[in-house]
Amino acid sequence: MSSIVAKNRKNLVLISGRSHPQLSQDVANELGADLMGVDARTFANGEIYARFEGSVRGADVFVLQTYSNPVNEWLMEQLIMVDAAKRASAKRITVVMPYYPYSRQDKKGRGREPISARLVADLFKTAGADRIMTIDIHAAQIQGFFDGPFDHLFAMPVLLQHFKNTLDPESLTVVSPDMGRVRVADVWSDKLGAPLAIIHKRRDPLIPNQVSVHEIVGNVDGRVCLLVDDMIDTGRTIVKAAEALKKNGATGVVVAATHAIFSNPAPEILNSDVIDGVVVTDSLPLREEQRFEKLTVLSIAPLLATAISEVFKDGSVTSMFDGAA
Amino acid sequence: MSSIVAKNRKNLVLISGRSHPQLSQDVANELGADLMGVDARTFANGEIYARFEGSVRGADVFVLQTYSNPVNEWLMEQLIMVDAAKRASAKRITVVMPYYPYSRQDKKGRGREPISARLVADLFKTAGADRIMTIDIHAAQIQGFFDGPFDHLFAMPVLLQHFKNTLDPESLTVVSPDMGRVRVADVWSDKLGAPLAIIHKRRDPLIPNQVSVHEIVGNVDGRVCLLVDDMIDTGRTIVKAAEALKKNGATGVVVAATHAIFSNPAPEILNSDVIDGVVVTDSLPLREEQRFEKLTVLSIAPLLATAISEVFKDGSVTSMFDGAA
Amino acid sequence: MSSIVAKNRKNLVLISGRSHPQLSQDVANELGADLMGVDARTFANGEIYARFEGSVRGADVFVLQTYSNPVNEWLMEQLIMVDAAKRASAKRITVVMPYYPYSRQDKKGRGREPISARLVADLFKTAGADRIMTIDIHAAQIQGFFDGPFDHLFAMPVLLQHFKNTLDPESLTVVSPDMGRVRVADVWSDKLGAPLAIIHKRRDPLIPNQVSVHEIVGNVDGRVCLLVDDMIDTGRTIVKAAEALKKNGATGVVVAATHAIFSNPAPEILNSDVIDGVVVTDSLPLREEQRFEKLTVLSIAPLLATAISEVFKDGSVTSMFDGAA
Amino acid sequence: MSSIVAKNRKNLVLISGRSHPQLSQDVANELGADLMGVDARTFANGEIYARFEGSVRGADVFVLQTYSNPVNEWLMEQLIMVDAAKRASAKRITVVMPYYPYSRQDKKGRGREPISARLVADLFKTAGADRIMTIDIHAAQIQGFFDGPFDHLFAMPVLLQHFKNTLDPESLTVVSPDMGRVRVADVWSDKLGAPLAIIHKRRDPLIPNQVSVHEIVGNVDGRVCLLVDDMIDTGRTIVKAAEALKKNGATGVVVAATHAIFSNPAPEILNSDVIDGVVVTDSLPLREEQRFEKLTVLSIAPLLATAISEVFKDGSVTSMFDGAA
Amino acid sequence: MSSIVAKNRKNLVLISGRSHPQLSQDVANELGADLMGVDARTFANGEIYARFEGSVRGADVFVLQTYSNPVNEWLMEQLIMVDAAKRASAKRITVVMPYYPYSRQDKKGRGREPISARLVADLFKTAGADRIMTIDIHAAQIQGFFDGPFDHLFAMPVLLQHFKNTLDPESLTVVSPDMGRVRVADVWSDKLGAPLAIIHKRRDPLIPNQVSVHEIVGNVDGRVCLLVDDMIDTGRTIVKAAEALKKNGATGVVVAATHAIFSNPAPEILNSDVIDGVVVTDSLPLREEQRFEKLTVLSIAPLLATAISEVFKDGSVTSMFDGAA
Amino acid sequence: MSSIVAKNRKNLVLISGRSHPQLSQDVANELGADLMGVDARTFANGEIYARFEGSVRGADVFVLQTYSNPVNEWLMEQLIMVDAAKRASAKRITVVMPYYPYSRQDKKGRGREPISARLVADLFKTAGADRIMTIDIHAAQIQGFFDGPFDHLFAMPVLLQHFKNTLDPESLTVVSPDMGRVRVADVWSDKLGAPLAIIHKRRDPLIPNQVSVHEIVGNVDGRVCLLVDDMIDTGRTIVKAAEALKKNGATGVVVAATHAIFSNPAPEILNSDVIDGVVVTDSLPLREEQRFEKLTVLSIAPLLATAISEVFKDGSVTSMFDGAA
Repeated sequence: MSSIVAKNRKNLVLISGRSHPQLSQDVANELGADLMGVDARTFANGEIYARFEGSVRGADVFVLQTYSNPVNEWLMEQLIMVDAAKRASAKRITVVMPYYPYSRQDKKGRGREPISARLVADLFKTAGADRIMTIDIHAAQIQGFFDGPFDHLFAMPVLLQHFKNTLDPESLTVVSPDMGRVRVADVWSDKLGAPLAIIHKRRDPLIPNQVSVHEIVGNVDGRVCLLVDDMIDTGRTIVKAAEALKKNGATGVVVAATHAIFSNPAPEILNSDVIDGVVVTDSLPLREEQRFEKLTVLSIAPLLATAISEVFKDGSVTSMFDGAA
Repeated sequence: MSSIVAKNRKNLVLISGRSHPQLSQDVANELGADLMGVDARTFANGEIYARFEGSVRGADVFVLQTYSNPVNEWLMEQLIMVDAAKRASAKRITVVMPYYPYSRQDKKGRGREPISARLVADLFKTAGADRIMTIDIHAAQIQGFFDGPFDHLFAMPVLLQHFKNTLDPESLTVVSPDMGRVRVADVWSDKLGAPLAIIHKRRDPLIPNQVSVHEIVGNVDGRVCLLVDDMIDTGRTIVKAAEALKKNGATGVVVAATHAIFSNPAPEILNSDVIDGVVVTDSLPLREEQRFEKLTVLSIAPLLATAISEVFKDGSVTSMFDGAA
Repeated sequence: MSSIVAKNRKNLVLISGRSHPQLSQDVANELGADLMGVDARTFANGEIYARFEGSVRGADVFVLQTYSNPVNEWLMEQLIMVDAAKRASAKRITVVMPYYPYSRQDKKGRGREPISARLVADLFKTAGADRIMTIDIHAAQIQGFFDGPFDHLFAMPVLLQHFKNTLDPESLTVVSPDMGRVRVADVWSDKLGAPLAIIHKRRDPLIPNQVSVHEIVGNVDGRVCLLVDDMIDTGRTIVKAAEALKKNGATGVVVAATHAIFSNPAPEILNSDVIDGVVVTDSLPLREEQRFEKLTVLSIAPLLATAISEVFKDGSVTSMFDGAA
Repeated sequence: MSSIVAKNRKNLVLISGRSHPQLSQDVANELGADLMGVDARTFANGEIYARFEGSVRGADVFVLQTYSNPVNEWLMEQLIMVDAAKRASAKRITVVMPYYPYSRQDKKGRGREPISARLVADLFKTAGADRIMTIDIHAAQIQGFFDGPFDHLFAMPVLLQHFKNTLDPESLTVVSPDMGRVRVADVWSDKLGAPLAIIHKRRDPLIPNQVSVHEIVGNVDGRVCLLVDDMIDTGRTIVKAAEALKKNGATGVVVAATHAIFSNPAPEILNSDVIDGVVVTDSLPLREEQRFEKLTVLSIAPLLATAISEVFKDGSVTSMFDGAA
Repeated sequence: MSSIVAKNRKNLVLISGRSHPQLSQDVANELGADLMGVDARTFANGEIYARFEGSVRGADVFVLQTYSNPVNEWLMEQLIMVDAAKRASAKRITVVMPYYPYSRQDKKGRGREPISARLVADLFKTAGADRIMTIDIHAAQIQGFFDGPFDHLFAMPVLLQHFKNTLDPESLTVVSPDMGRVRVADVWSDKLGAPLAIIHKRRDPLIPNQVSVHEIVGNVDGRVCLLVDDMIDTGRTIVKAAEALKKNGATGVVVAATHAIFSNPAPEILNSDVIDGVVVTDSLPLREEQRFEKLTVLSIAPLLATAISEVFKDGSVTSMFDGAA
Repeated sequence: MSSIVAKNRKNLVLISGRSHPQLSQDVANELGADLMGVDARTFANGEIYARFEGSVRGADVFVLQTYSNPVNEWLMEQLIMVDAAKRASAKRITVVMPYYPYSRQDKKGRGREPISARLVADLFKTAGADRIMTIDIHAAQIQGFFDGPFDHLFAMPVLLQHFKNTLDPESLTVVSPDMGRVRVADVWSDKLGAPLAIIHKRRDPLIPNQVSVHEIVGNVDGRVCLLVDDMIDTGRTIVKAAEALKKNGATGVVVAATHAIFSNPAPEILNSDVIDGVVVTDSLPLREEQRFEKLTVLSIAPLLATAISEVFKDGSVTSMFDGAA
């Protein structure tokens, strides 16, 4: 009789939403763990239900969902899963979202707009998330939208490794498709030791995805151009940029991006003659009809698995990227 | 020179989500006001955007959205509108949701389930909602899920008025289709001065919308039965109940419900021979193919408009229902 | 020299309020642990003071209080104990309340009413509670009033075990004393494989505990009736129901309830000729004068001790009830 | 048609708890307003219920309760009233508590103690209070326990007015009964232009209300002593002090205190020969048996009414006390 | 007797911190109002004290502070003033900070860094701020760091007006001194109808204000260059950029920036031969020794006064900038 | 394959702000641990930056800063460090502040004042602090300003040990320099078994550090007086008190205080003939010019190290002081 004392173990539970089951399974395989069984479904009226098939009491829970279309379905599903984990006494809940939804709505561009990227962070905090993990977020300031640890991973090592094997740095020029993406291109230019060029254009704020003028700042004549961006949505910006590059003498145009959103008509127009290759990660699921011949998809699962493992073991995510995360 | 003083006026702004534009317009007409212009749309990748076309600074804002399928799209749209109104300096934001989404997920029926109805209340609080207004919520306890004023309206006066003109109380029996709805039927029985009967059945918690046994508790032989419920989703429960009533000698079966969700196959099976009429409100939008000959749809707009006006003027919503709200 | 690392043990501390010392001691005995010494008292002016006699730093603290009259004294005492535990660096604080106070004030029945059951959840959250544990709460939705884990236990296995030994299922009918309790009776009917009957009555909302009409829906003639409810307060509803059952031919009436509030005149009137036995748990303390010959009190301590142990060990409370908690 | 604009009026609603109906009525009379009708009662099991009989929508609500024994009943009642006002859409809720409960538990005197005075502030914040108004709080730091406006009123002008008419400053010495109350006596000494004396004693922290030694610091021989304190609880400290003063040559001992808690045996022992008069306010209710011949009770209602009116009209409470509040 | 009703007026109170008294006075003059008297001082040990000399009860309070060195003194002073206003019952508190402190610490550039710009927003929220107003914030995403209305003003109209009178658009090229400032230059280029050039350089993340390489992207030969930035701190980046422009054939270099931080050695080095003029606003105070011959300082007070007035009157800040705020 | 389980270790990380590096190093030495490397600096414009050089993921982090002048710099630095630790996934963050800043602004002495000591507690809570540890706080009620564990340490054992070796209790009188400090003197008088005297003076609230009258209450003639206070700021109060004591026949005056703020002109005037010795701790750093011959500085590091160790090991801080903390 008297006091009761026990050892304190911790266990990792990996839960997958329904947006990208293959990626979740790949991460589980990399970790050498099983995915927690989940009964998740959508009722006839559109409401989502989710229940875990095993105990998460006291566990270090990672809920993985990514944000392909339909974004709002997956958002509510992940929020519901976080709520269920909180009420089922999870010790800590990490929201793993390889692609952060609404990341382009990160400020009020005009009066009376929402800041939906902040809203998303707040919704997860409210539901019970202790931490967010994501990859190559659209604006680094979004880290500050969440009141708690935010593990920001970089896919660049994965992409870079691919290009080091396939492109000749000597003839390469890194190109930013857009004024807003210059910083990303700057980092690539630095890493590859290649010169930089920029596409200067103006967007009409009232007509999304419509671009008026394209000027190339920097030299691309006789160069192989690596167009870099964090995401490819409809692909129109990238294709227009590639056309301008080819018109100005580029001998090749290769596109690199972390997140392959590939909304229509991306798959069709990216398979254009002006583009010689498109390299993306599997941070978002691609249906068969979204894939095309010139597309290369690199796996992001090892990166996610390593980061999850470091978080679980109280290791270091920063050291995965030489201090940059 | 010296201090600056101004009179304090208040103005009402009514904003509509895209789920049920007709209802919003009807409410605006009843109020004698215009709807605020909103630029709301869904981008190619599924993300929603919303911006108000006029100022809401200092205004008493009512954002109206209802929850037909796709529920999660409308939920995110309304959350985004609330966020935009908060950041645009609205003085007070009322979320008007004639049908409260996820209201059937109001408790943990089993371990490791979410309580999504509470989650919904928290999400709106986080986005910036000061108050919720809804009609005939599935469980009255959901009022307690929101930390603030919650105006709970009743459609019963609207439905009752209809039946007082069309049914003879002498031959009427009020029937609850379900053990869980007995309280609602009890109120109807009281208001109409008609006897009560109950359908006793058991649901298999693992197979939604599947019912095993049907017994009728109470006398329905030779009676016109008024089957009452707060909502009709797939309609299967109601049709099974109607069949049982007719089999037990009911001379007529009329169905009354506030919320016409009408998920498949509701429109088809409700148009059955065992049902003589279905009376609902327009709290949810009905597409052409969801309507059928025996269906009567009553307008809920006057009720909503009166409640919004009372809230705006600091009047009394309670007095609209003889002290019951 | 350099970094300091230690093993992480966890220890359980059980603290008892003054409402039901016997139950606390029984739970401690079941757990094989001592109760933490507490200096708790009420000063001359009615204010309560509490101080723990040992350290709770880093401990998994369970504070047990139940809610017999005087409810508000015990409520403030438990809040004060939670505050003291929080400030004394407890790692996790679980509020164990076998009977949840104010659970019948779970919604606004009329305008301008409080929702005191939500208020209670919020008060404990504010004081520092991480989790609530209770038994057979009046409305399952109250789980959603607390923003965190809520362990809802069922006394039914304890009660059921008793009746399996004492009643013959063949001649048994389960009876709900009230429209609002039909769901509970439904579960009993299912578990015992016995038919169901319901007492249909109308309450006057302005005169509590006053009932106007009693009709029996279903067959009770020649049957032994098991009247089931979650709690017995003044006992008037139960006695009126028993009278009606006997008048309609019931050969026996046995009453089962989890929570024996037994406000006056319960002890006296329950000892009536129309009732053949009353079975309750010791979730609430009973003074000598509240006990009577026909009363059986079953111990709830083993159930509480098991649940506390599962929570402490990160086991599973859900599995204690075949997935239902 | 188009936008709806209205003038913004504000109205004051005064609600009374059941602890001190006379004081509430006096304040209402001073304000020239009616008390809001409230249906407040305690059920048989000890739970409290409260509902307002008129609308408080948009109103500036003041809920008045004071904290005589039973303190915890009145505390829960006021919390419930604040919750009801919040849910009934009050615009602003001021908690008026002439005596602040648990004000002596304002710090951890020893390890593992609660800080109940902070807890009380948090409970009201959680329930929905926007502001607290109180009189002569035990420690001024308690103002900092509430996260919002805290109107701290002083009864001293009321008491001082009385003594200016009844005592001769020439022969007067102000006496602090206790080291902890020296600051209060200091202010009185300053206001009356009278010398100061102090009773030096030591309390045993483990035995409340037990005092070991009494020394008088300062000269009281041949003086009329005005013993001042913020509250009188059991009266033991005061009587012991008076005895010591008389023993040391004081020709008279008059006691002044704001809050007459008068727990047993205060009424009896204060009526002692060593005390020549006791002057208090009616911040707490006194039952007939708590009154005695030498007692003078001054009305605090005009002070409260003025402060409420200043708060309502956005006037100045500070200016009521020459900048000191 | 009976209910008390009053008209609801609102009044504006403008309070100034001690960082930039001239700007506060200019804003007050533009508004036609007096500054509230404040007793603000720093005690010998470095702690700050502030007390308002008039009532702010019910007022719409604007607390103006800007963030020249010593930044942390002014930060604490403004936080203290917000706290005092909250406790003194201000109705609404707007933090006006023409320059937002710590705005360059808006993300984790590397692991284990703070996000101090988010921290600043949270500190003001905690102290009691309802709204933030600032000018030309370093990253637009910082708007999302504050959970509430955030009025973001643009100084560009003020600066633009100046240049339209002084520069010939035909010979003008807009130059971004930095990859990170390209977006700002893009807007200027658009507004002035002038071509764009960019200085491409790389910063060493470990050595602030140290730049390694400077390349000019775009044509500046024979052009007058307008170097635009949101702020000038030490001036080193700007001077290096100007040198590179002159070296590449620029006939003139004029610098425009909103915020003149002018840390050492800015005043000295900006007065260089390679720079023909520097135009800034008075959003930050400049001491005599920070001014130099080529410097033009434009007043930001009219802009602030108009915005404060629009906020107070529930007008529109968005319309001040053609929908962009 | 399948579930991943790990042992749960905990590790202590000690981080030092820049206010008092010697004390931090002494505490680290006492603990037998290294200080975490931190890159902390102040940029040219006055903003502070801090980054940890090693991982704090999952660690029990103690951030030590004390509050000498410049107080607000150190405050912002510690807030930034807490923010960085929170975002870097520290498990628990303890703010160690040997001297609590703004502790004298613990109440509203007059209307419209801030309560800066509460503000400080809230700022740390917001930044991410889980616990505060401090020594001899000015008012014990400040413990209640923080919503969480607050470890209040006492330097008295350290000081007492010194005096037991150096002073003769027989000839000793403990003196409070001020009415507000009488409680502290009371404890000393009790511990040393020495009589008590008090300096009675009146402060003009509008003129800080100015004192009008000095009377001595109690006997000091022919006694060695121990003047005790929690802090010495400008020293004026202490010197005036010492002069009065000597004038009244004291044969010696020794001063004891925990916190040596020593604002000007303290070092100069404390070295007066009327004072025979000043004994303080090193809770605040003393520059060379702040030290003088009669000054003795005792190390507080062992006390802090023991408390940190007890907190880390879930031991007992209360037991360090015989139950008093």
